[in-house]
Amino acid sequence: MPEPLTLAQIAARLGGRVVGDDAVLIRQVGSLERAGAGQIAFLANPKYRAQLATTRASAVVLAPAAEALTALPRILSDNPYAYFARLARLLNPEAPPEPGIDAAARVSPRAAVAASARVEAGATVGEGARIGERVSIGAGCHVGAGVVIGDDSRLHPSVVVYDGCRIGARALIHSGAVIGADGFGIAEDGGVWVKVPQIGGVLIGDDVEIGASTTIDRGTIDDTVIEDGVKLDNQIQIGHNARIGAHTAMAGCAGVAGSATIGRHCTIGGAARILGHLTLADHVHVTAAAVISRSIRRPGTYSGIFPFDEHAAWTRNAALIRHLAELEARIRALEKGTAGKAKHE
Amino acid sequence: MPEPLTLAQIAARLGGRVVGDDAVLIRQVGSLERAGAGQIAFLANPKYRAQLATTRASAVVLAPAAEALTALPRILSDNPYAYFARLARLLNPEAPPEPGIDAAARVSPRAAVAASARVEAGATVGEGARIGERVSIGAGCHVGAGVVIGDDSRLHPSVVVYDGCRIGARALIHSGAVIGADGFGIAEDGGVWVKVPQIGGVLIGDDVEIGASTTIDRGTIDDTVIEDGVKLDNQIQIGHNARIGAHTAMAGCAGVAGSATIGRHCTIGGAARILGHLTLADHVHVTAAAVISRSIRRPGTYSGIFPFDEHAAWTRNAALIRHLAELEARIRALEKGTAGKAKHE
Amino acid sequence: MPEPLTLAQIAARLGGRVVGDDAVLIRQVGSLERAGAGQIAFLANPKYRAQLATTRASAVVLAPAAEALTALPRILSDNPYAYFARLARLLNPEAPPEPGIDAAARVSPRAAVAASARVEAGATVGEGARIGERVSIGAGCHVGAGVVIGDDSRLHPSVVVYDGCRIGARALIHSGAVIGADGFGIAEDGGVWVKVPQIGGVLIGDDVEIGASTTIDRGTIDDTVIEDGVKLDNQIQIGHNARIGAHTAMAGCAGVAGSATIGRHCTIGGAARILGHLTLADHVHVTAAAVISRSIRRPGTYSGIFPFDEHAAWTRNAALIRHLAELEARIRALEKGTAGKAKHE
Repeated sequence: MPEPLTLAQIAARLGGRVVGDDAVLIRQVGSLERAGAGQIAFLANPKYRAQLATTRASAVVLAPAAEALTALPRILSDNPYAYFARLARLLNPEAPPEPGIDAAARVSPRAAVAASARVEAGATVGEGARIGERVSIGAGCHVGAGVVIGDDSRLHPSVVVYDGCRIGARALIHSGAVIGADGFGIAEDGGVWVKVPQIGGVLIGDDVEIGASTTIDRGTIDDTVIEDGVKLDNQIQIGHNARIGAHTAMAGCAGVAGSATIGRHCTIGGAARILGHLTLADHVHVTAAAVISRSIRRPGTYSGIFPFDEHAAWTRNAALIRHLAELEARIRALEKGTAGKAKHE
Repeated sequence: MPEPLTLAQIAARLGGRVVGDDAVLIRQVGSLERAGAGQIAFLANPKYRAQLATTRASAVVLAPAAEALTALPRILSDNPYAYFARLARLLNPEAPPEPGIDAAARVSPRAAVAASARVEAGATVGEGARIGERVSIGAGCHVGAGVVIGDDSRLHPSVVVYDGCRIGARALIHSGAVIGADGFGIAEDGGVWVKVPQIGGVLIGDDVEIGASTTIDRGTIDDTVIEDGVKLDNQIQIGHNARIGAHTAMAGCAGVAGSATIGRHCTIGGAARILGHLTLADHVHVTAAAVISRSIRRPGTYSGIFPFDEHAAWTRNAALIRHLAELEARIRALEKGTAGKAKHE
Repeated sequence: MPEPLTLAQIAARLGGRVVGDDAVLIRQVGSLERAGAGQIAFLANPKYRAQLATTRASAVVLAPAAEALTALPRILSDNPYAYFARLARLLNPEAPPEPGIDAAARVSPRAAVAASARVEAGATVGEGARIGERVSIGAGCHVGAGVVIGDDSRLHPSVVVYDGCRIGARALIHSGAVIGADGFGIAEDGGVWVKVPQIGGVLIGDDVEIGASTTIDRGTIDDTVIEDGVKLDNQIQIGHNARIGAHTAMAGCAGVAGSATIGRHCTIGGAARILGHLTLADHVHVTAAAVISRSIRRPGTYSGIFPFDEHAAWTRNAALIRHLAELEARIRALEKGTAGKAKHE
């Protein structure tokens, strides 16, 4: 644990304007609801504003417009959440991995592992792999032949990277992620499926985070591409030959089918699905659970949830979904004054 | 395999009323469709009632109201399915694990592993971990530093528990589950994502079952909490800071986004999604594939599937979904007698 | 890498009719967009037809009807995609695994592993398992007691097969797949869940492919069955006692709930869900993300996506979904000429 810092010291490091006692000592971040002495909380979502009145945090980070909402010592920042993120890292620094290859790891003599890197027990690293400086490869990971992993990347335990995939610098990959498994390429021939060999790879840029049990398939011929700064939550599926543009973020259980191209600076909500062979422009925002079934050429926010309801009401309304075209025909008949003759009367 | 039991012996152990020959010997459970001599089947779902006439089971468990539906020796129970569950366990007891740490496991000398516990080949147990009595840690599992696992818990192979997570007694965790990976906390700042360090943990109560490849993220600051008796099927995603109330059950592929609070005794159907920062009351039942997009304050059953249809019919009706507001305006115009002047005529 | 082949040699091996210079040498497949000299591309999806004009591939595979679309040397095939699949395999043959059990694998002395099979570092093979000829078991896999794996099957790293499951010949199983975890059988009893022991197994036919992180649960009493030639993409969940008919293919993130029976030669789109205890006939095609909530007795194509829209439009239209029954009542009132007296006017 690092030394505690005063608000003045924090602002000197991270910017922001201190209001109130700037000598208050902070040793850890906390939530408005549960923080105690020595902890600093933040307010970004107005939904939690009421908690300001009762918090026992020693200080708070909030937006200038919210300055008057509390008398606590506070730091004002135009982006309190990002400020909090940096402050939390300052108070919880990550140590570089302890270098060395565990005796119970299995590293090919033809792999190049930087002396500053760490390979834990039960991990395997294949022939021709190149592992950068300060990389950490967790217990039980499997890094295939010819894989390249950039400096300062971290693989938590039980990550699998298939042969030939390339991962940039500062990647953070969580347990259960599988990178480079075969894309789902099958050709129907006389009622039987013929496998299409998947000889492309996966190319992952710098500063990418990949969540637990997320799967990114290798390309059929060319690569599947994840550009710089992409953030993927857990249980996301990226099909073969997809391309995810730089600084796009996708929440848990989202799925991108094969050959879809997603622009830069997009956000894809949890459990949203992007169908195959589509293109999404930059700055497209898809809300949770929407299914995107055609290309989106204009930036904007797109949604598509079927609204839930009490079961009986849903049953009644859902049945009518199957009859919308008939409802429309009945309206048309009424408009034409022919309703009395329509078959639906 | 234990000794076969007569119906009388079974009823003495588990209750229920025997009708017919109570000396029939039972050695195993079976399905109505495929059971043979020496096997006992059950009827709980009326859908399978016709199978009673043809079953070759030696006996059947069913509800008192169904007593007359068969002439086979039978046990009457108010809850035939729960009765069957207990009977199946009686006939298929689980042996406690053979104690010992495999020579190919890697247990920190600063971990405390009960002498009655088992750690299989390739598993790793980190510094400061505390592993309770009769716990079984399967091959290739990774138990992080400071993890606590209560008595009689079982981790199947390839489970990952990140540092500092706590799991209660009698947990059953299936392969591929990942507990305690980072929550998806990222703050946008000038078009780039800043990671919010996830310094909370995961707190799992007693008697919890976690399915294969289910992921439960650690909290941002406070813990993600899974209360006692929760049952999670496969490929469920639980976001950071979620709280799942005691005795709630969730079927496969369900998802709970960050900071959602689900009450006690709820059931969440397969592939249902609970969006973030919502609250569900106790005794809420969400049917399969519904997306819950706002809080539910009253017990009850809630649904939200888009009804499928033949493709051509779906195409026709789905197109009208995008025009519902116009349809409503046309109806309003007709009601006002202004349909002739409306732009949609 | 094998020797390059002329178009004439390729056609002699795989059939098809060569048009143009049949002495062109081909050493690898490529995409229309990126292929270069020595590479052969294909055209199956008309969407990519424009790329024919600019491709730098040395040759192309296409349908007879598309013969005139290019002047490049070409092979005509009635099924260009399947042809391409076979050609890609011809140019990228899979070597049989190098036989042998790694010193860091843990194979039970009571398992039977063919001499031609391979077991990699960190893998475990349980008592009574039978591993066929030329099987490859990747690093960190866990093959339970009594498991049977047929000839020429390949398990990529970190696959888990629970005790007693049986897998046919020529299976291809990707990393993170979990076969045979407990089905989700729980019986409610006085507000608490009683586990139903899952004593069935999983029976997988020949020529089955299983994607990364796909989970297939064992049966409650009888087996869960995956018939010959089934192809499953990533992150698919198959519930207990489901049966998937021969040569059915399912795309990523699809889910099949317990006791569902899917026919032969079906295709299930990505993220589609088949609810429990249903039956789908042979040759049923479910498009992406549809939720199938009742049995389908007739072959055909079935769909069920809620159409996405710009957020504001969606909000407006989705609100009306909850009022469809009222809209219908208003139409009915108009048809009866009683609209003026209806409560909705």
